[in-house]
Order: sequence, then C-alpha cells, then structure tokens
Amino acid sequence: MSPFSPYYAVIFTSLKKEKTEEYERMAEKMGELAKQQVGFIEMESARQEIGITISYWDSLDAIKRWKQNAEHLLAQELGRTQWYEHYKVRICLVEREYEY
Amino acid sequence: MSPFSPYYAVIFTSLKKEKTEEYERMAEKMGELAKQQVGFIEMESARQEIGITISYWDSLDAIKRWKQNAEHLLAQELGRTQWYEHYKVRICLVEREYEY
Repeated sequence: MSPFSPYYAVIFTSLKKEKTEEYERMAEKMGELAKQQVGFIEMESARQEIGITISYWDSLDAIKRWKQNAEHLLAQELGRTQWYEHYKVRICLVEREYEY
Repeated sequence: MSPFSPYYAVIFTSLKKEKTEEYERMAEKMGELAKQQVGFIEMESARQEIGITISYWDSLDAIKRWKQNAEHLLAQELGRTQWYEHYKVRICLVEREYEY
C-alpha cells in the first residue's frame, strides 16, 4: 500500500429552488470543467432532498484557482441569484481514509 | 459572527448491492443513534447512483467512540457482508466554511 498523502475535499451542500434544464446543463458543464483543472482528483455527487457534491483536490491553491475560474464564477453567480435556496461550502483536509 | 472552530466531517460514500427494507430500517436507526452521541453535530445524506452520508463531529475522539459503538459495529458488519458492493470512509478536518 502506498503511504497516504493528505488532500482536500470541498463539500458543497445545497437546497435548490426548482429543477431547471439550464441548471442541469450548467452543473454538467461545471463537472466537466472541474475535471480539467490542475490539482483536481475526483468528484462525487448525489441529490435527494438536498444535493451533496464533493470535489477532491490536491491543494488549497487548486481549490482557490477553481473558485476564481471565470466560467465557474458565472455559475456561482447564477447559483446565488437563480438556482439555490441555500448552500453551504466546507473546505476540509482529508486526514485519513479506508475502504471496503 | 462567532469565530469559527474547526470540527470534523466523516464522508461515507457507498455503492449498495440492492435496496432492502432491512437496510432502510438500519440506516434510519443508525442516524437516530448517531444524533444521540456526545460530540455529534449534524448529518447530511443523499443517494442516487452512489450514496453520500456526511456526519459532523466536534472531535476525533467522538468519531472513534461512534465507530466502536456496539450497535454501530453490528451495522458496519452487516454493511460489509450484506449491503454494500463498496464503500469508502474519509475522516476530514473542516478548516473553513461559508454559506449563502
């Protein structure tokens, strides 16, 4: 087993106003765009009553760059003004992991 | 605004074999039981293709105690042997957060 290197998780939880096609398109586009960023590791997502999207990154700098990405800034703005009732972002250091 | 105190997140992602009533009952019971533990803050959950459950705790000790809880140990065993195709657990330090 290779030694574990800490990395970062961005937990994004959200409550949407209503489902719109425009939102779906944008969410998909942002997922694709995130994957192309330097420092991106992976992304996991599920939505029922609330939506949870977790993206994993190799550094805080990578997260900062993604937050400031021009297309992502536009999506964030649309999120605040149109799509989300509420959202919360948590920046986390992944200290340990195990799987089965 | 009160100053931010770091806390912990346990990200549990899972792929289930199939939906069973027994699983649903146990998941609900574990949610209720987690809420009663010392150090528990909150829990968020959503499932589509994958399930994501995040529980938030005020310390690593609280997480360790919950992992060793007798009823929870039984649920973990049933999870491995019966319900999950795969799962991954990540223990994270929440360093920063913001919301809208």
